[in-house]
Amino acid sequence: MQTQTLERMESNVRTYSRSFPVVFSKAQNARLTDENGREYIDFLAGAGTLNYGHNNPHLKQAMIDYLATDGVVHGLDMWTDAKRDYLETLENVILKPRGLEYKVHLPGPTGTNAVEAAIRLARVAKGRHNIVTFTNGFHGVTMGALATTGNRKFREATGGIPTQGASFLPFDGYMGEHADTLDYFEKLLNDKSGGLDVPAGVIVETVQGEGGINVAGLEWLKRLADICKAHDILLIIDDIQAGCGRTGKFFSFEHAGIKPDMITNSKSLSGFGMPFAHVLMKPELDQWKPGQYNGTFRGFNLAMVTATAALKKYWTNDTFERDVQRKARIVEERFKSLATILTENGMPATERGRGLMRGIDVVSGDIADKITGMAFEHGLIIETSGQDGEVIKCLCPLTISDEDLLEGLDILEKCVNAVASQ
Amino acid sequence: MQTQTLERMESNVRTYSRSFPVVFSKAQNARLTDENGREYIDFLAGAGTLNYGHNNPHLKQAMIDYLATDGVVHGLDMWTDAKRDYLETLENVILKPRGLEYKVHLPGPTGTNAVEAAIRLARVAKGRHNIVTFTNGFHGVTMGALATTGNRKFREATGGIPTQGASFLPFDGYMGEHADTLDYFEKLLNDKSGGLDVPAGVIVETVQGEGGINVAGLEWLKRLADICKAHDILLIIDDIQAGCGRTGKFFSFEHAGIKPDMITNSKSLSGFGMPFAHVLMKPELDQWKPGQYNGTFRGFNLAMVTATAALKKYWTNDTFERDVQRKARIVEERFKSLATILTENGMPATERGRGLMRGIDVVSGDIADKITGMAFEHGLIIETSGQDGEVIKCLCPLTISDEDLLEGLDILEKCVNAVASQ
Amino acid sequence: MQTQTLERMESNVRTYSRSFPVVFSKAQNARLTDENGREYIDFLAGAGTLNYGHNNPHLKQAMIDYLATDGVVHGLDMWTDAKRDYLETLENVILKPRGLEYKVHLPGPTGTNAVEAAIRLARVAKGRHNIVTFTNGFHGVTMGALATTGNRKFREATGGIPTQGASFLPFDGYMGEHADTLDYFEKLLNDKSGGLDVPAGVIVETVQGEGGINVAGLEWLKRLADICKAHDILLIIDDIQAGCGRTGKFFSFEHAGIKPDMITNSKSLSGFGMPFAHVLMKPELDQWKPGQYNGTFRGFNLAMVTATAALKKYWTNDTFERDVQRKARIVEERFKSLATILTENGMPATERGRGLMRGIDVVSGDIADKITGMAFEHGLIIETSGQDGEVIKCLCPLTISDEDLLEGLDILEKCVNAVASQ
Amino acid sequence: MQTQTLERMESNVRTYSRSFPVVFSKAQNARLTDENGREYIDFLAGAGTLNYGHNNPHLKQAMIDYLATDGVVHGLDMWTDAKRDYLETLENVILKPRGLEYKVHLPGPTGTNAVEAAIRLARVAKGRHNIVTFTNGFHGVTMGALATTGNRKFREATGGIPTQGASFLPFDGYMGEHADTLDYFEKLLNDKSGGLDVPAGVIVETVQGEGGINVAGLEWLKRLADICKAHDILLIIDDIQAGCGRTGKFFSFEHAGIKPDMITNSKSLSGFGMPFAHVLMKPELDQWKPGQYNGTFRGFNLAMVTATAALKKYWTNDTFERDVQRKARIVEERFKSLATILTENGMPATERGRGLMRGIDVVSGDIADKITGMAFEHGLIIETSGQDGEVIKCLCPLTISDEDLLEGLDILEKCVNAVASQ
Repeated sequence: MQTQTLERMESNVRTYSRSFPVVFSKAQNARLTDENGREYIDFLAGAGTLNYGHNNPHLKQAMIDYLATDGVVHGLDMWTDAKRDYLETLENVILKPRGLEYKVHLPGPTGTNAVEAAIRLARVAKGRHNIVTFTNGFHGVTMGALATTGNRKFREATGGIPTQGASFLPFDGYMGEHADTLDYFEKLLNDKSGGLDVPAGVIVETVQGEGGINVAGLEWLKRLADICKAHDILLIIDDIQAGCGRTGKFFSFEHAGIKPDMITNSKSLSGFGMPFAHVLMKPELDQWKPGQYNGTFRGFNLAMVTATAALKKYWTNDTFERDVQRKARIVEERFKSLATILTENGMPATERGRGLMRGIDVVSGDIADKITGMAFEHGLIIETSGQDGEVIKCLCPLTISDEDLLEGLDILEKCVNAVASQ
Repeated sequence: MQTQTLERMESNVRTYSRSFPVVFSKAQNARLTDENGREYIDFLAGAGTLNYGHNNPHLKQAMIDYLATDGVVHGLDMWTDAKRDYLETLENVILKPRGLEYKVHLPGPTGTNAVEAAIRLARVAKGRHNIVTFTNGFHGVTMGALATTGNRKFREATGGIPTQGASFLPFDGYMGEHADTLDYFEKLLNDKSGGLDVPAGVIVETVQGEGGINVAGLEWLKRLADICKAHDILLIIDDIQAGCGRTGKFFSFEHAGIKPDMITNSKSLSGFGMPFAHVLMKPELDQWKPGQYNGTFRGFNLAMVTATAALKKYWTNDTFERDVQRKARIVEERFKSLATILTENGMPATERGRGLMRGIDVVSGDIADKITGMAFEHGLIIETSGQDGEVIKCLCPLTISDEDLLEGLDILEKCVNAVASQ
Repeated sequence: MQTQTLERMESNVRTYSRSFPVVFSKAQNARLTDENGREYIDFLAGAGTLNYGHNNPHLKQAMIDYLATDGVVHGLDMWTDAKRDYLETLENVILKPRGLEYKVHLPGPTGTNAVEAAIRLARVAKGRHNIVTFTNGFHGVTMGALATTGNRKFREATGGIPTQGASFLPFDGYMGEHADTLDYFEKLLNDKSGGLDVPAGVIVETVQGEGGINVAGLEWLKRLADICKAHDILLIIDDIQAGCGRTGKFFSFEHAGIKPDMITNSKSLSGFGMPFAHVLMKPELDQWKPGQYNGTFRGFNLAMVTATAALKKYWTNDTFERDVQRKARIVEERFKSLATILTENGMPATERGRGLMRGIDVVSGDIADKITGMAFEHGLIIETSGQDGEVIKCLCPLTISDEDLLEGLDILEKCVNAVASQ
Repeated sequence: MQTQTLERMESNVRTYSRSFPVVFSKAQNARLTDENGREYIDFLAGAGTLNYGHNNPHLKQAMIDYLATDGVVHGLDMWTDAKRDYLETLENVILKPRGLEYKVHLPGPTGTNAVEAAIRLARVAKGRHNIVTFTNGFHGVTMGALATTGNRKFREATGGIPTQGASFLPFDGYMGEHADTLDYFEKLLNDKSGGLDVPAGVIVETVQGEGGINVAGLEWLKRLADICKAHDILLIIDDIQAGCGRTGKFFSFEHAGIKPDMITNSKSLSGFGMPFAHVLMKPELDQWKPGQYNGTFRGFNLAMVTATAALKKYWTNDTFERDVQRKARIVEERFKSLATILTENGMPATERGRGLMRGIDVVSGDIADKITGMAFEHGLIIETSGQDGEVIKCLCPLTISDEDLLEGLDILEKCVNAVASQ
């Protein structure tokens, strides 16, 4: 494989090509193929962007059909039939059946754009500047979003501009199993000199993806929603990684039965790996004036075409949802057993997750790297997350075949066993 | 046309659908067609995103071919053959023939992402936080980029977080024709108590698109480059709107014969209207550590496929370049004549621009609105720019046919005449 | 008493003249006298500025003697014999006997100036921007210091500029008696994505004055010092209110046996109520370049004259220290008994403090106001502190006579009894 | 002279003791005496703090009388007879005769405290965050004030926290004698995308002291006031150095016949070199809520006693004013002649100033240092100002005797001649 140009021309900032240093040329559902024809099971799936798999044929067909009619690919935020279809489908397939009523903001097509739009609107709507975010949260790296992202790697690379406008509070479980971290939040809210500027909004992931598959308890989420309501604070669920079915429901917060004030979605929203994002907001919060937040690619029609196709294909009944949950139980069981193997071999490990967003916390980034590095050699692409890369993280396509799922898990087991017995 | 869902569901933030309140369903080169089959000449072209026209057949074919082989659409920043092709083509077709040597950073696929990456790297590389930007500049709206964007509409909609890290200086011509605004910049640089924090970088558009087709003189650009060099400041050309051939050269700064330290491109970079952006930087500036700036869609292969096709189709010789310059002269001549008509009718107007990035400054946003509003009624889509929307701005596809170009100009002339005689 | 001019001319921002709306004309040790000749016992003492009492005769004499020789009153930061005397006395009387070695920065003569100087130097010295501060901390209101001050009254009155550069963490006891809040701090320090930017320094009061007489445990302070050392973080003790003998030692941190990297002093430092402040810093931290932090009144010689006299009078042996501790025990005992009275009458109250910095937390700001308001009517000046003004706070002069101390306590008891029996 | 303790104990940040490395022990009016009995003429006068000279006997007597009665020295912001006297005197002697009506805010007793209070109130009053300040302006170094101060020495010593909330514009004359810099300000105000956030206020010195004795023209000041009024922007005159008679009027803006919205005074306000400051604000701007801006030393009664005495002694008629103007003409004439000497010897120099705030710009900091260094050797204390220390600056006491004034000027002439003939 020729990689000289890639190595010479691309910035040092590149990362995944370091973990997986081959040139890929094909991809289908849960399989990636490199230039030499070697296939890999993909448990990474674009870090949760490919919930419906690589090159999903239904979505691809919708896209090709659209291109065939010379549909509008780019038209800024003009009205198109593709946009109308998307909004109607979103309303009818997703929102109405869940008793949700939201308006849709289509900002620039990336998660960080959606987060910036959401927190900015929260500030405008409430006339306060502060946003509460949580330890180990990840919400993007443009300067506005970065303020809410905990990772020092990004925070320390701003070239001397401190972020502003956000306060970190401990996520569920951060202070040990016996402490409810919301006690601290509530105390600070009620404390006139506690140093917490009354926030406009709270932004939270129900399961922290980059942060290490940290799962917010459903009671914790409910209480968080109650606290926000009681203090007139907007609750923003960042469902960029956990949404679009990843946890077994379309929205990850459905499990908790809450109705956030705003939701950010991206990653798997287009369904085909194309850049796309939206903010959903309760209608009364839509205090934007025309054009106050813009972006060149804020109405990427091709992505709306595949997004519409994905909703129609997978979300008009609960078949897909139940299948995801079924697979989730398989992964959960296997991961628990892998955690046990490691623990029994003196490497304490625990399993956690919700739906098909699951991880094994092996405590040490080195151990995790050993396992995932070996897995790649054996044909499985899987990454780590967590503050030190100590959590092996499964984000396989939700559409993965049982065969591929089991093969991937088998590879992982082999590697875990190898590392455990070293 | 059914627009209720669109009106009900989409955020108030929408803008272009207010100026052009129809539902579009088809687009080909310089023509948009609405649901009722009415055709419009498109002088907006995605605000400069569609330099090669809507649904460019060469690019579409490349994309369909890629999809047909199940090429990798999304793979984060893994290596793919599509990325390698893009980098090789960029190097061979664009950089080498121009004597340029740059490394490529593929950040999130939007202009604002590229700007944030560029100014952040400039800060890191120079160990200083300040970025000099210019009056009427537009560089994006995420918080980092917003600091360099002059428009109050965006600056005042942050919900109480002032931007930081940038200082505005007067763009070429801002202080009248007799003053060289760089005198002021140079004086401030040499003044230990002038209040200008020594900047890490200067970010500038050679022709300000959103700011009103304000054209930086070539001598001014050269002097700016010299000042930057003399003071160890990085020169960042934001070529997001003016690049990719818009001014008659691939990079808009080629006219001035300068070699910036960094370049940001987006908009027409994919050629097909798909979200895509890169930062080019001199190799020695690439001080990023792996993963310090990330984003889910930072390697959008489909966009790289069309971007490669566009480079191969239009930039391997100077035929396209010369054709753009030829059309530019047509627009220039016609715009001058329109400006004369208005001026002679008591509405002072001037023409300006470089290449096919041209405008008529009619001084008043109301007059400009009247003309462009009437133009839309007559089948021409054209927008205004400038701080008060006082500049009628032509950003037609560079690939527009002479027939469409002339028809568009004729419509505009009709409207100018009508408004002039009111 | 004529108060019209005062009411008409002075800004609404005034506060103490609202609680004590009389015109004072004389003051001696722990007694203030109003224009009508009415005397008041002063348990406020300039919020801890008059540790040696109003118009301390020894200090006044030193000042008058200095004036008589036409000593330099103001000379910016030139060298004077008064400054030399002060530095020598500070070294010989205070620092050396305690085994401390510090350099002295004389910034602008107020606490907030000293805090800004200290945290700025910490940032410069460590090359990091963040400062950890604690819930309910108060460190001044100029913008740099305000970032470390928890009180919303000040934080919300900046006119839309959020503070930056500080992170709040829970003070000792903030999470209940069973949680060691430093566990949270340490976890955040070790967590690469916890959202805590590695701090340059920690600023802390050993007893929070404005925050409600919250007392940091000695073990907590020791552990804090250890954590700082282990993580290469500077420990800054803000001893502006608790220093100069208030807790029964010259420095309030002496009880814990720690040696901070920096110390800020002001309030009682001049001893005579005159504006004066200094920062003490370990010699190796003195990375200031000449003139990098300035101020017109940074060498207020008159204040140094009285400061020197105070050190010589009260700190050359332990007589004064032991007397303060003796009086402290009297106040402690009486406050405990007052707390019991309130508690037994259905108003839960607790006593706390260290040395002569003591308070009764009556939980409710209204109850506290009733008691202190009644006290004023009976001739005792005493204020409240805490986030809701719920803590009655004794900061009487350390030099108060036993008669005045007991009379003041008797008045307070009378008022507590009256409120308790309402 | 013993200086070891001073050198060992005091922070490197010290400055004036480097230019004048002797230990002073006495001071009377315009004369300082060092420990060895050597006398120096003082043309520095505490950088404008000692307009009424060192140890002014009238003021000293008032202070001693006050101390003799045990007047309240420190009482936070309680009402005292000293404060009432000060406010009444300020109103009757200064404000009413000038047709001015202001309320008085007594913040912390330093200039930077007053500036922070003023700009913060401007923001609160106007609901906007931006403050316009000017090139070479100096308004203090606490973080809020620092944003408005141009000097890089301070701006670069914040340890990585960029200032925020202010925009620099060119001061009068900054762009050469033919350009009115307010044209640029006005253009930016009217430009919706010029990058200037609509300011809450403008802060300006009528004569820039630290910036190099840059004198704002009276027409420029009038136009600035008009622009502010037209755009609903508050005009804040920072009269900390130029006020209290320095320019020949009590307020430096009287020459221009304008009435600012706010005024900051400090330095010579107490008259005796004691820390003291106030903000004067138009009554309708007093939107402070009780206690929103505080500080321990915000009612320093001793300073109010001498401030009152100074007003009564020097400002009840125009005798003092006329005497200052007479002396100013002497200095002006002599400085012009010194500038001519230098110019004729190949060192281009110019004289400028207003009243007794005068300077000789010798273009080079080295030349200025040579002259002032030699002057010190000959018994004259005089400092330099300007971005590079290129302006020799006379701020002698306004009360200087003609003998001392002439002797000082003679010394300076001798040194100028010596340097000119080198």
